[in-house]
Amino acid sequence: MDHAGRLNRLRSSLEGNRLDSLLVTHLPNVRYLCGFTGSAAALLVADRDCILFSDGRYRTQAKAELATAGVSNVRIAIAQKSPLVAAAEWLAARRRGSAPPAVGVEAESITAAMRDRLLALLRGKARLRSAPPLIERARMVKDPSEIQCIRRAVELGASLLGVARKKIQPGVGEIEIAAAMEYAARIRGAEGMSFPTILASGSRSAIVHGRASAAPIPRRGFVVCDFGVILAGYCSDRTRTVHVGKSSVEARELYQAVLEAQLAAISAVRPGVTCDVVDGAARRVLRKRRIARNFTHSTGHGLGLEIHEAPRLAAGQTQELQAGMVITVEPGAYFPGKCGVRIEDIVLVTGSGCEVLTPTEKELIEI
Amino acid sequence: MDHAGRLNRLRSSLEGNRLDSLLVTHLPNVRYLCGFTGSAAALLVADRDCILFSDGRYRTQAKAELATAGVSNVRIAIAQKSPLVAAAEWLAARRRGSAPPAVGVEAESITAAMRDRLLALLRGKARLRSAPPLIERARMVKDPSEIQCIRRAVELGASLLGVARKKIQPGVGEIEIAAAMEYAARIRGAEGMSFPTILASGSRSAIVHGRASAAPIPRRGFVVCDFGVILAGYCSDRTRTVHVGKSSVEARELYQAVLEAQLAAISAVRPGVTCDVVDGAARRVLRKRRIARNFTHSTGHGLGLEIHEAPRLAAGQTQELQAGMVITVEPGAYFPGKCGVRIEDIVLVTGSGCEVLTPTEKELIEI
Repeated sequence: MDHAGRLNRLRSSLEGNRLDSLLVTHLPNVRYLCGFTGSAAALLVADRDCILFSDGRYRTQAKAELATAGVSNVRIAIAQKSPLVAAAEWLAARRRGSAPPAVGVEAESITAAMRDRLLALLRGKARLRSAPPLIERARMVKDPSEIQCIRRAVELGASLLGVARKKIQPGVGEIEIAAAMEYAARIRGAEGMSFPTILASGSRSAIVHGRASAAPIPRRGFVVCDFGVILAGYCSDRTRTVHVGKSSVEARELYQAVLEAQLAAISAVRPGVTCDVVDGAARRVLRKRRIARNFTHSTGHGLGLEIHEAPRLAAGQTQELQAGMVITVEPGAYFPGKCGVRIEDIVLVTGSGCEVLTPTEKELIEI
Repeated sequence: MDHAGRLNRLRSSLEGNRLDSLLVTHLPNVRYLCGFTGSAAALLVADRDCILFSDGRYRTQAKAELATAGVSNVRIAIAQKSPLVAAAEWLAARRRGSAPPAVGVEAESITAAMRDRLLALLRGKARLRSAPPLIERARMVKDPSEIQCIRRAVELGASLLGVARKKIQPGVGEIEIAAAMEYAARIRGAEGMSFPTILASGSRSAIVHGRASAAPIPRRGFVVCDFGVILAGYCSDRTRTVHVGKSSVEARELYQAVLEAQLAAISAVRPGVTCDVVDGAARRVLRKRRIARNFTHSTGHGLGLEIHEAPRLAAGQTQELQAGMVITVEPGAYFPGKCGVRIEDIVLVTGSGCEVLTPTEKELIEI
């Protein structure tokens, strides 16, 4: 990972955004810039100084991780107070000749209380400004080493469907199946799951975020399996809906409709296309089948160090896709109290179109 | 759980805090008040109206969970926009006779950007005020049904040490041990782990938050095992440090010092004692052994629906302990590049003192 390059690019963008420095408090952004993975951090990025504030728990870890990331120009400051307070005090104590410097904060992640506290601690020695999402924008487009990480995570994540297929049987608890998948993920090297495993069977398949429960798999019906792993910091995400027992004509038609919507959305993915167009492509297919209103969420989202990142594939989203973006494409249709189907793949935007990173077989599996 | 009672108590406290309503956006607080567990929610608590704003993914789930919680006076509003924006628009559209109402926000959790957006959307139709941490204060003292939930979570969590002891052997990867513990947790009913499992062996034991890595257990040295589960929404947390191979005199002395510090802190726990006194009790023991500076974190924290809740057991914390509070007591001592020891229990503050909920055997185990 080219942490040093990322930091340098961010530093050179500060002036153009009328910022003297940027106080990075969103932890995935801190990790992106300097490799530090601890739970307490504020990274002050300025033209000359770069300081990582953390607390006593992370003295050893911060030193090791910054060395691994090769960001030799970041100083580590360990304080016995919150990293943000330490950063504010450092800023306030700095001698300045002229006007108080403009310090950018990440308004989308810093809490309102923390911004108030910062303002009070700065005592006019610096001005706070809501910075544009400079790091989120950079993170949207993955570099080759990140794509490699995501490929590995996706590969590991995808392999868990095989574990699920072996375990899914009428009477087996959803949670037992999730446990087997999560165990396999860990044994194969995952740091953890990228979100609580969704395993929603029978009428629970209509619950979009139906976390694995104690409910047993019914004798007949859909099972939505939506799961992902974190490997070397990067997330995977994948949904397959399988059917226990013989599927009815209606069930197959529903599955086919969602699959067509998903394929239509994937076909629309290429550089220069806006996100709402991809979303619209999926929705159009479901509208023809008169089930557009049963598709109750957006078509997808970026992923990387976080499971949900920019861009968002939804109506009104005018962000253009660019080569190097990695997104999910995951339409679904849900009938409360009855059933639901969702099909999801990870898609890499390439120079000329896209590449589906998840294995592509997605005919309806009957178990 | 007495969700209706919690909501009613909160409503009756609004006026005394000069609030017409409170916009609850911190998800564990939403769950605490109305039982909803979805990832998108804003709960507007007012004297007359109570409205849960969420999005299309949660239509079915919200209805089911509010019914289970028995909060019949909470309306559900499903919108195709962010719940907070929907709430703001609802507030702005409300006809009001006199002065704009005072709406409290949870400044410690709402982002600065969201507060700015709310302000803009309200167009002066309501005033925003940073509310005191009314719900966090209520949540500090657990009711009997919560204590029952925590007891169950702690019992399940504690049982995982047996799994770890069977797996810990020189050459076995830390991550394999964590995987076995997490699998057992899931099979025994846990929704997940309450934080990434810490399994730090050999020199890694000096890393306070040393997540299980691919590193193999060395032939000799400490292994810090810090882990917890979530069961029915409530967290457990427990640390034991075991020793692989025969321990040296120095290792035993270090372990004994941390154990004495922990027992001293537990002895200090009773209603009316302030949190800093408990922290000081642990620190005093380590100071006598001249290793106080190797104890680089606070002594403990509350836990419940979240793994870290109020109160905090650290220097300067003047919050008094009250019967019904549930806290961790977890001093440690760390020697970068060499080794570390931490011992942690969950303690319930009772009417006259405290009860240690985690099983108490904590002599140094050699494997």
